[in-house]
Formats: sequence, C-alpha cells, structure tokens
Amino acid sequence: MTSSPVLALTTGEPAGIGPDLTLALAVAWQDHETRLVAIGDPELLAERAARLALAVRIVPLADGAPVPAPRDGVLPVWPVRLRVRSEAGRLDPANAAYVLETLDVAIAACRDGHADAMVTAPLHKGAIIEGGYPGFTGHTEYLRDACGAEAVVMLLATERTEPPLRVALATTHLPLRAVADAIDAESLRRVTTILDADLRRYFGIARPRILVCGLNPHAGEEGHLGVEERDIIAPTLAELRRDGLDLVGPLPADTLFTPRHLNNADAVLAMYHDQGLPVLKYAGFGEAANVTLGLPLIRTSVDHGTALDLAASGQADAGSLRVALDVAAKMARSGHVAPE
Amino acid sequence: MTSSPVLALTTGEPAGIGPDLTLALAVAWQDHETRLVAIGDPELLAERAARLALAVRIVPLADGAPVPAPRDGVLPVWPVRLRVRSEAGRLDPANAAYVLETLDVAIAACRDGHADAMVTAPLHKGAIIEGGYPGFTGHTEYLRDACGAEAVVMLLATERTEPPLRVALATTHLPLRAVADAIDAESLRRVTTILDADLRRYFGIARPRILVCGLNPHAGEEGHLGVEERDIIAPTLAELRRDGLDLVGPLPADTLFTPRHLNNADAVLAMYHDQGLPVLKYAGFGEAANVTLGLPLIRTSVDHGTALDLAASGQADAGSLRVALDVAAKMARSGHVAPE
Repeated sequence: MTSSPVLALTTGEPAGIGPDLTLALAVAWQDHETRLVAIGDPELLAERAARLALAVRIVPLADGAPVPAPRDGVLPVWPVRLRVRSEAGRLDPANAAYVLETLDVAIAACRDGHADAMVTAPLHKGAIIEGGYPGFTGHTEYLRDACGAEAVVMLLATERTEPPLRVALATTHLPLRAVADAIDAESLRRVTTILDADLRRYFGIARPRILVCGLNPHAGEEGHLGVEERDIIAPTLAELRRDGLDLVGPLPADTLFTPRHLNNADAVLAMYHDQGLPVLKYAGFGEAANVTLGLPLIRTSVDHGTALDLAASGQADAGSLRVALDVAAKMARSGHVAPE
Repeated sequence: MTSSPVLALTTGEPAGIGPDLTLALAVAWQDHETRLVAIGDPELLAERAARLALAVRIVPLADGAPVPAPRDGVLPVWPVRLRVRSEAGRLDPANAAYVLETLDVAIAACRDGHADAMVTAPLHKGAIIEGGYPGFTGHTEYLRDACGAEAVVMLLATERTEPPLRVALATTHLPLRAVADAIDAESLRRVTTILDADLRRYFGIARPRILVCGLNPHAGEEGHLGVEERDIIAPTLAELRRDGLDLVGPLPADTLFTPRHLNNADAVLAMYHDQGLPVLKYAGFGEAANVTLGLPLIRTSVDHGTALDLAASGQADAGSLRVALDVAAKMARSGHVAPE
C-alpha cells in the first residue's frame, strides 16, 4: 500500500441510491490522503449527475492507469457496462450480471494491488436472484466464495462513541429459533479467532480485549437459564485464552454494554444479530459501518439498502457511505503498519 | 392518594446493601413532596446507620399512625422483626420469612391505602429458597401471586434520554432456545394490553404509541428469516389495533432503536430479554428502574442485586434506588390524575 490508499467503491444496484451517494461524495471529497475510484457504468453516473445537478466530471480510467490524486468534482471510474439501460427506481434483473461484475472487478483490484480496500454500495438481493443467480444470498457470502475464504465475520463499528464501539456477531441472519443450535465450539473458535486476528491486523490493536456475550439472559445464571455458557462458550473461551487471546466472558449482554466494561475493551462478540446490533445502531445513530472480517482483502459496506424510492431524488443521505469509506481507509493504513 | 404520596420501601435482604441504600437516601431526602417509609427491622437499620456513620434517626411508626412529612436525617419505619440477628455480608436463611414479611406488609399497605406505591430493595433468591420456600422464583412472581394478578409485565425505564426510553418484555427469564415457543397470540395479546393500560394509567399517556419488535432478525424479512412475525405477531397486532391500540410493527429490532422511531413513541415492546435490555441499560447508564405492570398496585425496583460484599462498606451506589423511588412517585401522582 502507498501512503495514499486507493478505495474501490462498487456503485451497487444501478436503479438505487448507490450512484447518487457516490456522486454526492465526489462533489467534495474530504480526505485528501485517500484516492477514490468508483466501479460502475460511466454513462449511468454521468446521467445521474446531470439529473441531480451535481457538478461531477466522470473520468473513466484505462486499464492499468493509476488512480489519480483526489480532486473535488472529479470521479475516476473503472468502467463496467450496464447490460440494459437502467431507470432510477425500477429494478431490472437483466443487470444482475452487471452488479456482480462490479464486485469481481473490485476483488481483482484488491488482489492485484491496484486497490487497498473495497467498499460496497447496496445491491438488491431479489434482483440478483431473479437475474439468473438463484443461489445468491448476499454480498458477504459472494465475497467469501469468490475469495475462497473459510469463514467470514460480520462486524459493525461506530466511532461516534468514546472509545469506538465495535460489535461482531457469532451468528448472523438466522431465525431466532435456529440460533442456539448454530453455536458450537468449532464455530465459536473460528469466529473469535478471525475477530482477534483482524483487530490486530486492521485496527492496530496489539492484543485486543474482546468482551463475549452469553447466549442466554444473565449468561445462563449458573445454568438456571440455559446451559450453553457452561457447556460450550466458557470452555471454548478458556481454550482460546490458553492460546493467548484476551477474552472476557461470557458476560450477561444487558450489563456488558455499560462503561465499566466497554471502557476497557476493543470489541464485543455478540452471539446473535438482535443481541448486539440494536445497541450498536442506537449508539452509532446512523453512523456505523459494516466490516467483513476473515477475507484476504479489506471490505466495508454501508448499513442500509437500495432505497429505490429515493434514487435520483437528491434526498439520499451519504452519511453511512462516508463512514464506510473512512473505516476502510483507516483499515488500509493500519494494515500497512502491521501486516500479517 | 394525597398530594404527597407515600412510598413504602422494603429494605430487602438484611445482610445486603438494601439497608445501606435506604439510609443513604434518608440522610438527604430530596423530594419534599413525597413521603418515604421503610419496611424492615428498626434495630438493624439503627445498627447499620451507626456502622456507616450516617446521621439518620430511625422512627418506628405505631400501627395506623400516618407517615410524617419528610425530614432530612429522619427515617420512618414500619417495623418487621428479624428472625435472627443479621450480620452484614453473611446470608442466613433463617431470615427468609422476615424478608417475605416485609413484602406482605408493603402489599397490605398499598391495598389498604396507607401507601401509594411500593419500591423493593434487592432480596437474595437463594436464601429465600433455602429458608423454606422452595417454590420461590423472585419478587415479581411473589407479588403476582400475592395480588392474584393474572399476568405481570416487566418494564425497564430510564429518563436519561429525551424522550424517556421505556422497554417492556414479552418474555423475561427464559433460555434463548425456549423463547420462540413461549410467544403465542394469547400471551402477546395479554402483555400488550397490560402495557397499554398501565402506560395510560400510571404514565399519563392518553393513547400510548408502542413500537413492537419482531422476534427474528429484520423482523423475519418477509418470512425468509422466520415465520413468527407473519403467523403470530402481525395478526395479533392487527387485532389489537382494531381494539384501538396504537401499535407500530413488528419492526426490526436493530433499526427500531433510532431517533426516527423512538422520537414518536412512548414505549418499546421487545420479544425477549437480550433484545431489549442491552440498549435500555446502555442508554440508562445505571439510571434505570424496573417497573412491574399488571399488578393492582404500583411497584418499582432497583435493577441490581444484594451486593453482599459491599454491605456496611459505604461503597454501595444508591443511584438505581433513587430512580426507582422517583419513578414510583411519578406513577403514583399520574395514577391519581387518571384512575382506572
């Protein structure tokens, strides 16, 4: 990585707000130490800029051309061509292959060293599935498979708090009744190990202190409210501590998120989605980034959807994308300082 | 109720911090519109006051004597006698009957109109069970049965936020894997109805707007992440709306706790303990009260345990008890304005 990292931004579903947010940030790009390159259709972007009356010049880059230093009102683009013309607010599954190609270009750029991180604007899962990819389940799994990663970990981070709040999940998008069975010693060890390693590598933390939630209320209350803490979580944490990890828990989730614990910790590992994310998003107040750990590249993402109804309206809020880009830039710099 | 409500404070486990916190508040009782009466052993309280060097005069009240106006450094007491001498920090199951008697006295006082609300300092569940009450499961269930209430609802409330944050639970202390099966149309209807009625009655809200969480992440995402929203929660809320309740949801829990939703709502109904309480306690920052709804009396409680190791040390923090008393006083006044 150079001292001026390159962030490759996939512009996502063309009928959604991804192009709008990309252009809004290009008008006044604040981080002059970071180079932004969008991945998408240059004509789509130029057309959307005109419609939004945003003074942004779209500059398609030739193969192998370096990403230039940032300039307000100039947006360098690695071109990917739409399969069919896209109308703001109207999904067309015929562009599913276009959306996936933008991801492939970003992955290749990170692999080949042309980009230092990738940041993804939202895509529409339904449109991808209908467009001929029935097995598609989301950005994260697509990246995992494309990169040949064994497992990935979802981490949400906000810097609106002091210290920054970072919440990783042991399980992600599962019905609640499937959660308990999805947590076993092996999966928990894998997730915790990835979290620890990537906090060291990308967040510049020498020995991360991780607070681990119990699965049950009151962390099982000595077995009265559930046995998974006693049978699975506590023994797995003990084993990982012997490997040198700094883990606290399993702690009751309702008292974990208080200053007494958080002030001395680098991250929280929640056992499931709604145990960890309500408090993270409450604290983050719309300024949280979604980070995928466990990949051989840096990837962050916005934390919202395509908002089809807001496309081309000028009403979309670029706050979350701004945070996703900032976090990616920090991770790229930190990854440089402390390589694997 | 008079214009100066009487709060009956059960001092809880005698070996714990309940007596300490009661005395600490009596030294400088700030709310001169509210009369406090402690329920416990006057000798225990006098002895603990001496040990903590707190200038509090213990004034046992005769049967039927009115609770006097509050004065700093004076603590009126409805006497209940310890069964055996209690030593700070050391549980003695022989005093289980004493602890339960303090509750009985408070319940009777509320029923007979001598008190307007009861507030409970912590007891020790294990000591009660060992003391000859094997079926004892906690304050809340004891009060429910003693009052002959059909069901009760646990609500946590903090006023550290604007607007105040109030979170009620559809299920409370269950292992996570038992939660989904515990939620059916009948239980959900009962909990929601109690919450709505008591927000009207005790919080002065003419028509409470209640935000209801889904059970599954993303509130089930149209059935892709669980079916309980579609099959149980949404139909039950629709039915209750026809009865005039103002309910929003089921909403994804991770985006519900953001200003867009919270600024226009009076309470949140979470489906289970760790979905709602981490964010409430994060926001409340040690200043939350636990309120039991559905009883024929007003009851609030601290949100911590007996802290045996801090008893008689002077280190216990009365913040949560202060909030529990404040909330009880407000509820008593509001209940006066809009009786059932």
